[in-house]
Amino acid sequence: MSPESLSDFYRGDIACLNRQGRESLGAFVHARAEHNGRPLGLAGYRALLAADFRAIPDLRFTIALLVSEPPRIASRLAFDGTPAGVLFGLPVNGRRVRFAENVFHELEEGRILRVWSLIDTGAIRAQL
Amino acid sequence: MSPESLSDFYRGDIACLNRQGRESLGAFVHARAEHNGRPLGLAGYRALLAADFRAIPDLRFTIALLVSEPPRIASRLAFDGTPAGVLFGLPVNGRRVRFAENVFHELEEGRILRVWSLIDTGAIRAQL
Repeated sequence: MSPESLSDFYRGDIACLNRQGRESLGAFVHARAEHNGRPLGLAGYRALLAADFRAIPDLRFTIALLVSEPPRIASRLAFDGTPAGVLFGLPVNGRRVRFAENVFHELEEGRILRVWSLIDTGAIRAQL
Repeated sequence: MSPESLSDFYRGDIACLNRQGRESLGAFVHARAEHNGRPLGLAGYRALLAADFRAIPDLRFTIALLVSEPPRIASRLAFDGTPAGVLFGLPVNGRRVRFAENVFHELEEGRILRVWSLIDTGAIRAQL
């Protein structure tokens, strides 16, 4: 896989997340996917996505930076939304917040197997 | 610059940080360097490094993940140290803490010009 084709694959994954395409998520996420060292699996990943959209009904994933070196791809994602209630333990309660996520992905067998994610909760706290 | 040579350059930068080589930092960091959108410059970068080592006398930068696609390189850094007092607003006071940083770098003119960093302060909080 070339850096360019891995970037295209990842853009497809993000488009799938944005249309809440939970059925097609299996084309991108490995059945034994791990998130920050925690075994999630594809079912856990689908549940996480559903929880994200429950917390932030107008959630949109936007790629701010993309660095691709197969089998790994790193992205900085920009979020802009109005979380309904509590988000990452913070009482957002319908206010508009913007924040970033810096996240690494490692592919195996053509799917995302390992994810190391950090979310800028400090930025959210500063906006409340 | 190839992905491999950018990775080598970055390993050189990290080795320079670990030996607190503030004089040679100019070989890696651009004179107009920015950190999370804040103009720092090389002098500001040197001051930041000095402050890091004051806060964590036994600070050591370890590369856990490296993703290189020139002119950008992303790294996940692992830290393990005993901060003397307050770190990122948290009263660590000599306890041993481990935490990660997910950080993107963008080069211009052969030096690191832009840095987008997120530090896992939640992990530190959980260890206190």
